[in-house]
Order: sequence, then C-alpha cells, then structure tokens
Amino acid sequence: MVKEYIASNQERFLNELFDLLRIPSVSADSKHKDDVRKAANYVKAKLEEAGADTVQLVETKGHPIVFGEKIVNPSLPTVLVYGHYDVQPADPLNLWHSPAFEPVVKDGKIYARGACDDKGQFYMHIKAFEIMMKQDALTCNVKFMIEGEEEVGSDNLPIFVRDYKDKLKADIILISDTSLISLDHPSITVGLRGLSYMEVEVTGPNRDLHSGVYGGAVANPINVLADMIASLHDEKGRVSIPGFYDKVVNLTPKEREALNKAPFVLENYKKDLDIAETQGEDGYTTIERTGIRPTLDVNGIWGGYTGEGAKTVLPSKASAKISMRLVPNQDSAEITELFTKHFQSIAPKSVKVKVTAHHGGQPAVTSTTSKAYKSAEKAFEQVWGKTPIPTRDGGSIPIVSLFKKELGLETVLMGFGLDSDAIHSPNEHYGIKNFTLGIETIVAFYQHFAK
Amino acid sequence: MVKEYIASNQERFLNELFDLLRIPSVSADSKHKDDVRKAANYVKAKLEEAGADTVQLVETKGHPIVFGEKIVNPSLPTVLVYGHYDVQPADPLNLWHSPAFEPVVKDGKIYARGACDDKGQFYMHIKAFEIMMKQDALTCNVKFMIEGEEEVGSDNLPIFVRDYKDKLKADIILISDTSLISLDHPSITVGLRGLSYMEVEVTGPNRDLHSGVYGGAVANPINVLADMIASLHDEKGRVSIPGFYDKVVNLTPKEREALNKAPFVLENYKKDLDIAETQGEDGYTTIERTGIRPTLDVNGIWGGYTGEGAKTVLPSKASAKISMRLVPNQDSAEITELFTKHFQSIAPKSVKVKVTAHHGGQPAVTSTTSKAYKSAEKAFEQVWGKTPIPTRDGGSIPIVSLFKKELGLETVLMGFGLDSDAIHSPNEHYGIKNFTLGIETIVAFYQHFAK
Repeated sequence: MVKEYIASNQERFLNELFDLLRIPSVSADSKHKDDVRKAANYVKAKLEEAGADTVQLVETKGHPIVFGEKIVNPSLPTVLVYGHYDVQPADPLNLWHSPAFEPVVKDGKIYARGACDDKGQFYMHIKAFEIMMKQDALTCNVKFMIEGEEEVGSDNLPIFVRDYKDKLKADIILISDTSLISLDHPSITVGLRGLSYMEVEVTGPNRDLHSGVYGGAVANPINVLADMIASLHDEKGRVSIPGFYDKVVNLTPKEREALNKAPFVLENYKKDLDIAETQGEDGYTTIERTGIRPTLDVNGIWGGYTGEGAKTVLPSKASAKISMRLVPNQDSAEITELFTKHFQSIAPKSVKVKVTAHHGGQPAVTSTTSKAYKSAEKAFEQVWGKTPIPTRDGGSIPIVSLFKKELGLETVLMGFGLDSDAIHSPNEHYGIKNFTLGIETIVAFYQHFAK
Repeated sequence: MVKEYIASNQERFLNELFDLLRIPSVSADSKHKDDVRKAANYVKAKLEEAGADTVQLVETKGHPIVFGEKIVNPSLPTVLVYGHYDVQPADPLNLWHSPAFEPVVKDGKIYARGACDDKGQFYMHIKAFEIMMKQDALTCNVKFMIEGEEEVGSDNLPIFVRDYKDKLKADIILISDTSLISLDHPSITVGLRGLSYMEVEVTGPNRDLHSGVYGGAVANPINVLADMIASLHDEKGRVSIPGFYDKVVNLTPKEREALNKAPFVLENYKKDLDIAETQGEDGYTTIERTGIRPTLDVNGIWGGYTGEGAKTVLPSKASAKISMRLVPNQDSAEITELFTKHFQSIAPKSVKVKVTAHHGGQPAVTSTTSKAYKSAEKAFEQVWGKTPIPTRDGGSIPIVSLFKKELGLETVLMGFGLDSDAIHSPNEHYGIKNFTLGIETIVAFYQHFAK
C-alpha cells in the first residue's frame, strides 16, 4: 500500500525535490544568502502541504531553521527528524557534466548539488510523513528540525536547541544524512567522526618580491608553509601534533575484527578512484583509517602566482585550509587548540603565522541496542529483506553529540546514500531507488517504533 | 648641455613614458596580446621620431621584436641596445595603491607596472639617442632591439638573433634592466643568475572527494605536494636535487671578500621587508645567497577549496609553479631535466605527477676589463662623481649568454633601478632622478666608448 502510493506519486515527489535542488542554497557563500532563505521557505511550504502544524522559520544569527510538528496523540512516542537544506559550494564548476543546480536524471540517478547531501535524503522524511498522513497511518508524533548551516558547522543550532528544549522533547532523533554500504548491503551508521577545521596564513616579506633579486635570502612563505604542512605527519602516517592521540579510544581486537567484516573490496575501491595505492596510517585497514582513526587533510591551499604562464615572484603570503577528523573521545575544541599552539610553535622566525578556526564538531557513537535502533533494523529487514550492518562513517554530523548533550536524546542514523554519490564533489548524485526505498523504510520505522 | 636638454624636455619625456606605461603589455597573458602589439608600435613610432632609420616590427611565433638603427659612419663603433617592452602581470591588483596601468608620480617616483622593468629603463636609451641626434653628438652607430617576450622567457629571440646575425653586428651590447646598489652607490652588474621555471601537477583520486568519507585512506594531493616541496631543501637550506650543485663555480675567498665589500646593512634590509630574520643556505651572506648561489623558490601554489568559509574536500589535484635561479656554470636545460627526473622519482605510488617546463635562461658573468666596461665606469664617474661598484645580481637576463654565444658579443649591464623599486610586485616604481641621471650617463657612455 505504501509501495503503491510511492509508485503512483513518484513523478510528483521527484519534481518537488528538483524544485528544491534548483535553489543554490550554499550556506558557506554569503552571496547565496537569499537562496538559502528561499530554500527554507520551500521546505516550510512542503511540510505544511504534507500536513505539519505550526511550521515556522526560526531566525538565527545566520540562516533560519525550519521547525514544524504533528502531534497526533501526546501518549504516542515522538520522533524528531533532523536534516539540512543547505549545500556545499558547487565548485569546481567546470568538472560538472551538467549544471550543479539544474537536476537531471541519468541511469536512474538524480545529478545535482545536494541531491544526496542532504536535500534528497531529508526530503524522503517529508514524503514519508505525507504518506502516513494521507493513509491515516501516522503511528507516532513527529517533529521536524531542518537547518541551513550544517555545511558551515551548525554554529547557531546549539542556541536553538537550548531555546527550544521543550518544543524538541522527543523519544528519538532520526537522521538520514549518511550512506549505505551498497544497495545489496543495507547498513546503519553507528559511529561518526568529529571535525576541527582550521585556516592558516603564513606571511614572509611585507610585499611580493622578485624571486631573482631576493630568492635564496628571504624566506618564501609557500616553501615554509609546505615545510610546516609536511611536518604535520610522521613517517608512519600519524599526525605529529603533540597530544593529538591522547584521548583516542582504541577498539578491542574483537571490535576491529567485527568492523572489518563489512564487505569491502580494496581493488574496486582503488579502481573507482583510479589510484594505484591507498595511503594512510600504518597498521590500519582502509575501513579503520576512515572509520575509527583521526586524520588531518589539507582541504585547500593558495599563494603566489597561479595564473597562466610564469611569474618569477617570491610572494608575501601563502594560506591553507586544514581540517582534522576526530574519533571518540577526542574533543574538537581541545584539538583546535592543540593544532593552533603546535602550528605557531613550528613557524620559523623568518615568517609570521596566523591561525584561525572555522567550524568544529564532536565525534559520536550511537547505540545498537536501543528500541529505536532495533526498529530501524526491523524496518530494513522488512523493506530490504536483509539485516543492516552497523558501520562507522568517516564523515561528521556534529549535532548528534549536541543532541545527546543538550536534549539527552539518542540518534538513529538511517541514511540511504552511497559513498560513490560524490557528495561535496562535482556530479553529486542520488539514486532514485535509494530515494523510494528510503521513503518506504522510514514509514516502516514508524510502524515498528510505535509497537 | 645634455643636462639642460633633459631639464627643458623632462616633462615631455615623462609624458611619453606614461603613454607607454598605460599600455598593459603583459606578455604572459594571452588576453593582452593586442596590448603587447600596441606597445611595440608605440616603441617603433618613438624610435622613428628620435631619428632611427628602417624601424620595423619583426614578427615572431609570439610577440614582435622592434628593430631599428642609425648608422652614422660604418667606421665608428656600433652599440646594440637591448630592452623589453613587455611587463609582468600586475596581480595581486588589490595591493596596488594606484592602478597598475595608470602611472602616477609620488615623492619623485613613477608608480606603474613596467615603470622600472623595463619600460622606464629602455626608454632612457631612446631619449639619450634623441639628444645625441638633436645635438649632432651621436659618436657611435646604434642599433635597437626591443623585444616583447622577456617576461616569458624570450622563446623567439634566439631565432631572431640567428636570422638577423648580420644586421645585429655591433661592438657591444648595452642593456639597462638591472639595479644600482643605491643613488649614493652607483654600480654595474657583472653577474646574472640563470633560470629554470617548472610547473608541477599532483593528481590523487580521479575526482574531488569528501574528506570525511575518504580522508585518512586516500593520498591527499595537497599534502603530498607539500611533502615533495619540503623535501627539495635539506636542513642546511641546500637544494636536495641530486647533481644540482655539480657545476656550480665556487668563488675564491678573495672574490667573496670583494663581493661582500658592497655596502649592505642587514638591519635596513630586514626592516624594509618587515621580516625578523633572513633565511637561506647555511654559510653564505645575503649578498652571496642572492648573487652567487643557486636557489629554488615556489612562485605559486593552488589546490582544493580556496573560497570563503570551509569546504571539507579531499581534492583530486594540486599544482605549483617552482623556479630555480642558476649560477655559472649551471646549465638551464640540464637543471630542468634534473628537476623533472627527481620530482617524478620522489612521488609516492598513491599519486600521479606531471612536470612541465616553462622558460629557462643561462647564467652569465660579464667582463670588468673590456673597453666597454671601462667606458661605462667613466660615464658613471663623470655623471655621478663616483666609481661604480661591480655587483652580482640575483635576477636573470637570459639573453646575455645568448648574445655571447650567437653574436660573440659582450654585454654591459648599465642599469639604473633600485632593488626597492618593487619590480614584479604591486606598486612597482622608478625614480625620476634615476631616469634623468640614467639618460645623462648613457650619453656619456657613447662619448667615452667612441674615444
């Protein structure tokens, strides 16, 4: 019956999603401020159409949060759905096969920025809600909290969560913003990495210099920055910041064994990325390197002349964006401080160094024994005919630990994306099958959770 | 009498130069192709006005070369003047206090891209020529060769020099494209460094990846590039490319002592650049590091997300422009090959590396005993009341060794700029006093060289 409803409404569902995907709600870029708000209003309208009450745009210092709810009966369990309507920047634009904000369907996949992360995924919840309302099958109260700043660190969400503590009362938080191992291997994310995101600027001379006249005698900020970045890892691929690993919880051999049971074929992984070899911390598998180990990556670097041809300049400045993925129980604020101190301490006297922090987030591990988790497990078994595998994801959803801390609520990460969906990359996409099966699974979750 | 002519025509001289400086003849940037030609035509017109015969634009595969001459009497010595009318790119534009191609005079200095390098300097020769013509005092035959590709490696000049071998017959080459130690310490450049200019591209995964999902398991091309760049210098500040120093001619203690006699105040140098410390190869002074030692500098670097805010991307590619300054007897082509082999050899299997060569140039040392050098010396003594100090410059004028090789001609580097003129940098400038004294000195050179 749910299947049928989805089938007969699929075209409308997709067209609604496409309208949302056409809005370039890039939260990181201030010139898209109005687009972000436009997306918020669109989500509000769709929640209202689906049958939610008291839907509102909650203003923040940044982008608004869409909040709405449907209380069918206070005695029933309450599900709090979280999602985000903001998206990552689309560049490099020239690598997209079709425009990032003009969704197209190819081989059963929707191509657009945000198709999977997270518009396509949270929109499944609005459609699941619509179905349950239309079919008089809403077995739980439901609350929606869809924010617009996830891609920039959810800076204003903690304030909202504190202010709306009462309104956010619920039994469980349900989030679809993660991946399945594959369509053949449904999985539920039970661990997420945290994040510290830094920006550094190295200044040498007070102006760009002629590299012939000064080269060899004046510290070149690009060379210095390269030295400093290189020194952030040791020869074993470990992050060399003092204290970085102090609080890392090491898994037991048994836990590691279980983790590595997840289906993974290194050759396919390398083939998909067109790399001859993987590279990471010695002594850990690829699944462990992305799942249970902290990392440090340069996300961007720039300095000097980057135009066409050759310019013999010894630049005044060089900069980089550097982020660290954290695991339980590393603390984002503490790591941010360790990085800042260390990076300043390794700067040679010949340069000046400025370190600033972008957003951070705490790592999280969720329960695999809660009623909510078991309900999600049953929902997958019902729709997919398979028991989902619990996995540790490399990505970060900082708010999971925030909700635990502020609201005392557990989260179930019922995501339906695939790692190959190219989120944060050109040609991001989301399978229509993932979208429709996801809706069905969400509806099934409500049924099991109400029992 | 020369002084008077300059004084009474100074305003016109400057206005003519300003018109030339207003033409953005950036040879490195193809979108300025027409501007480069416009500058060439302007130079041609000015040479004709000054009295040169058979002035022509010699076409090349790239930008044209302006050639003109005045043969007063075949039995007289002939001076071949070289200069270049192309300029470096002006970016970063936001650091200019006034627009790069709208010359303004502040505190007796002309501010504009090319004011010193090399429009302001070669234009002195056209005005010196005008004076000698007007005053019937041209004591030598003179030939002008003003090219438009010096800032991009003079790729087509060797072909021109071979084709015009006969037309270029002369006794000496005179170039003003270098610096004086200071207005109080006139100097003549007797050594120039060579150049190898490379571009490298490091490719990791075939697409930009989410740094959370893949970070820690897939080689990050920016981190790898940083490692590779860092490894290009050892802890003593020496370039670590095997064979890099093999052909370097080491100066004798006596030669080094003489070199270090040049007036130089480290404190002023550091203050001018606002740096706490200089940095370079162990065991050498600043004058030696820029004058007689080869170096390696990153001129530009880019990769990943460099926009506003934070993007958690593990990029597919990272690139850098890397140049090396060479000293006698290093060979540019050989160093280019050593760099290419070495850089590819140090790349980890987890990435692909592409190395391409931009322009190069050979180092050069000029005679301090030739008649031409002595004439330049006398010219300075006459106009500046001081004997010029022979210096080794860090910059490169590749054509000096080319002329020696192809035409068998010595060069006198009679430059009138100052290291503080910020050539290749924002707010490039050139002193009006340097300009007028330069013209006077050039005229004096012809008189002494004719004796």
